[in-house]
Amino acid sequence: MLKQTLLIALFAGISYAGAQTKFQPQDTEFYEPVPPVVKTSRTAAPSDAIVLFDGSNLNEWVSEKDGKSPAAWTVQGQVLTVKPGTGGIVTKKNFEDFQLHVEWKSPEVIKGEGQGRGNSGIFLQGKYEIQVLDNDDNKTYTNGQAGSIYKQQPPLAEARKQEDGWHTYDILYTAPRFNSNGILIKRGMVTVIHNGVLVQYNSELQGTTEYIGLPKMVAHGAGPIAIQDHGDLVSFRNIWIRELK
Amino acid sequence: MLKQTLLIALFAGISYAGAQTKFQPQDTEFYEPVPPVVKTSRTAAPSDAIVLFDGSNLNEWVSEKDGKSPAAWTVQGQVLTVKPGTGGIVTKKNFEDFQLHVEWKSPEVIKGEGQGRGNSGIFLQGKYEIQVLDNDDNKTYTNGQAGSIYKQQPPLAEARKQEDGWHTYDILYTAPRFNSNGILIKRGMVTVIHNGVLVQYNSELQGTTEYIGLPKMVAHGAGPIAIQDHGDLVSFRNIWIRELK
Amino acid sequence: MLKQTLLIALFAGISYAGAQTKFQPQDTEFYEPVPPVVKTSRTAAPSDAIVLFDGSNLNEWVSEKDGKSPAAWTVQGQVLTVKPGTGGIVTKKNFEDFQLHVEWKSPEVIKGEGQGRGNSGIFLQGKYEIQVLDNDDNKTYTNGQAGSIYKQQPPLAEARKQEDGWHTYDILYTAPRFNSNGILIKRGMVTVIHNGVLVQYNSELQGTTEYIGLPKMVAHGAGPIAIQDHGDLVSFRNIWIRELK
Amino acid sequence: MLKQTLLIALFAGISYAGAQTKFQPQDTEFYEPVPPVVKTSRTAAPSDAIVLFDGSNLNEWVSEKDGKSPAAWTVQGQVLTVKPGTGGIVTKKNFEDFQLHVEWKSPEVIKGEGQGRGNSGIFLQGKYEIQVLDNDDNKTYTNGQAGSIYKQQPPLAEARKQEDGWHTYDILYTAPRFNSNGILIKRGMVTVIHNGVLVQYNSELQGTTEYIGLPKMVAHGAGPIAIQDHGDLVSFRNIWIRELK
Repeated sequence: MLKQTLLIALFAGISYAGAQTKFQPQDTEFYEPVPPVVKTSRTAAPSDAIVLFDGSNLNEWVSEKDGKSPAAWTVQGQVLTVKPGTGGIVTKKNFEDFQLHVEWKSPEVIKGEGQGRGNSGIFLQGKYEIQVLDNDDNKTYTNGQAGSIYKQQPPLAEARKQEDGWHTYDILYTAPRFNSNGILIKRGMVTVIHNGVLVQYNSELQGTTEYIGLPKMVAHGAGPIAIQDHGDLVSFRNIWIRELK
Repeated sequence: MLKQTLLIALFAGISYAGAQTKFQPQDTEFYEPVPPVVKTSRTAAPSDAIVLFDGSNLNEWVSEKDGKSPAAWTVQGQVLTVKPGTGGIVTKKNFEDFQLHVEWKSPEVIKGEGQGRGNSGIFLQGKYEIQVLDNDDNKTYTNGQAGSIYKQQPPLAEARKQEDGWHTYDILYTAPRFNSNGILIKRGMVTVIHNGVLVQYNSELQGTTEYIGLPKMVAHGAGPIAIQDHGDLVSFRNIWIRELK
Repeated sequence: MLKQTLLIALFAGISYAGAQTKFQPQDTEFYEPVPPVVKTSRTAAPSDAIVLFDGSNLNEWVSEKDGKSPAAWTVQGQVLTVKPGTGGIVTKKNFEDFQLHVEWKSPEVIKGEGQGRGNSGIFLQGKYEIQVLDNDDNKTYTNGQAGSIYKQQPPLAEARKQEDGWHTYDILYTAPRFNSNGILIKRGMVTVIHNGVLVQYNSELQGTTEYIGLPKMVAHGAGPIAIQDHGDLVSFRNIWIRELK
Repeated sequence: MLKQTLLIALFAGISYAGAQTKFQPQDTEFYEPVPPVVKTSRTAAPSDAIVLFDGSNLNEWVSEKDGKSPAAWTVQGQVLTVKPGTGGIVTKKNFEDFQLHVEWKSPEVIKGEGQGRGNSGIFLQGKYEIQVLDNDDNKTYTNGQAGSIYKQQPPLAEARKQEDGWHTYDILYTAPRFNSNGILIKRGMVTVIHNGVLVQYNSELQGTTEYIGLPKMVAHGAGPIAIQDHGDLVSFRNIWIRELK
């Protein structure tokens, strides 16, 4: 009797083990690798970001004209503003894959139309432009409006400016890859969240941004962030980048 | 002589057109299709979002227990808080691909450790959990910390809470696809920005979230958003979703 | 004694279950869904393929000129050959995502140079051309050689013809996807294995194939396979397609 | 008068250029980079492949047991056959991303059932198994049948052997990528064409192949190709690999 009971228990135990208790919660719990801790803020850059502009100076930038003279734009009241005619500005550092945060604001005085109103742009690796434009009630081509990959991909939505007039771009960028023959094997890819609205979602780059003619796809390595001087008094603030590597 | 000069100029003009000016800027400018206009705000949902919780009521939710009785959590001071023991809450609507915004806050009184401290979770399509946890100085398994795809993928970084104690999740979700035989042909994919920090970047889902045992990958269609009652007084606010379709 | 032994065995059973045998091989073995059985052959189409040309007739094709009159190319000795001047041929059926197998052979008499020698092409969904060209020792632009996505992406390698002069293309195609606004949300994607050599690997389409000017990306649904009449006596055989759905 | 006419013509010429002739075919024709030439054959490896087994010897392989002693399997009549009990064989070279071609044949004498009949496997980077099994009328779990990613993903179809009893695997493999913290940032991806039939299409790896328990995803670099000794007299021939880099 005892024997029988225990045998039943034994088989029941094995059977139970096989059928229900075999997995323990900890089987699917891992402690390595350990994600790095990042402090966050509603107004400042994450603690592991490379701060490109925090309101104080342009130490991380040079002029695009010669790639070495100081960036000549205006810094006033924590805000960076294009100084028309001085040319674009470009980071000293080069980047491959990254997350980029930029805030921008159209000129106070609205003038011009289409591409002539509040135009600037963020160039990823110095080659691929996310358009900046005073887009509100300002008709232009859709692959040239704010949030577009300029002259390539229109945004999924036209996100209007926020209450205080500022725009935010949160950009995820994976650089294109080329093989040892220089042939493109993986297109560059861009995700853009514009004022909290997804406007580019893993959009593949056709090639370099060209105002006239076709995008070009030539093998390249790491490159800088550049901001365009298109002659308009566009302002920027709170620019930071996190390398994904 | 004049004639000849002009003829030369004419041919030169054509030739020039062929070799250098042939492209006009407008060749790469498109006006269709037109992205829809979306009004944005620093504090409220984009104008085209489905607001799931704006601080006033739980009309968009039901109890997870039976899928039809009213969601029984606490709404107070514009904030939604888990009522432990009442079970999870789940949206009435189902979704496929989407952008989801959720803000959450750990309980005021810190108690418990590891998974026992400030635990909740956001279930995408009711099946795939983005973990919510009071993560600060609280050791647990990395694929169970805040920002993880629970029991699958740890976050790229451990993003700490913002100044006011609130966390934000901006989630991009592409549902898995199955063929007519029910075989998975494209894994589901999740991107999560946690307090402005990229913590999941096109992470592919292994399958359903399981506390014990293996993720399962069974063909399914659209599904709801669910929030977990894990017994802790986790709070939520400003929840909205934008369908990508 | 018996009791003790059995108790030990029982606890050993449970303990073993919890610590080491908790996983059983069968935990990760699934019997559903069931892949369909496909008979295969070195010379004929897989049993589940739609045979587009097996050597006997052109019943699956019409003339591209009007989309309805019979395809007017030559069928002789199990081989299909372009009849120059009659225009391309196009399948009666439309397709979305698929695997396509085509064998082709350059004209017996070599004449012409560059794009003028043995030119034809396979159009996926009637819009995106995988180039066919007598490529051997025949200089042309690299994004126009055999195995290229015509005027877009050169092949990873220039695969020369096989011993018997025939070429094989094994093509995997995922159609582009557009959202309800008609905006491209996922580029079309092509993999091509040319004579056993990978020449396109998940290459994203820039848009429609255009001889002159820019690729266009306009929303569309399912489309046919088309083969080009470029005036050269290019031959084809063993054409089949398997829908991926 | 003449002058005026010609000026009109000139401007007309420019205007014409701008409106219709602006694009020349050559605008979209590129000569760089140049794809390398590869000779192909119906029976032998492409000229740029690393031949792992051409029928003559096992010089490219060692025993998996110690990673250095000679591979002890049988080479006879241009065919390689498992010598049960000697353990798997593994390439001396390591690989990252690649195209792999393998032909295999089930044992002449059919014996055993399920996983016990004609079992072997191809391990990519030594970690991820594409199953080899005598699958015909031999019921087993679908994620363990021929063409499966073993214990992970069933094949899209069950491709039966060809007329002569041989099977071919054409495998495209992109290795997983990990960031500097060791966190997975891109899953490994496998495409398999089995006897001409697509059975895995960009299937993402869940992790290492485990007979018992969960796949593991631990950061690693380049790895070898390995073939399993599962105790059955499975044969192989014509094994080659092309690195994608």
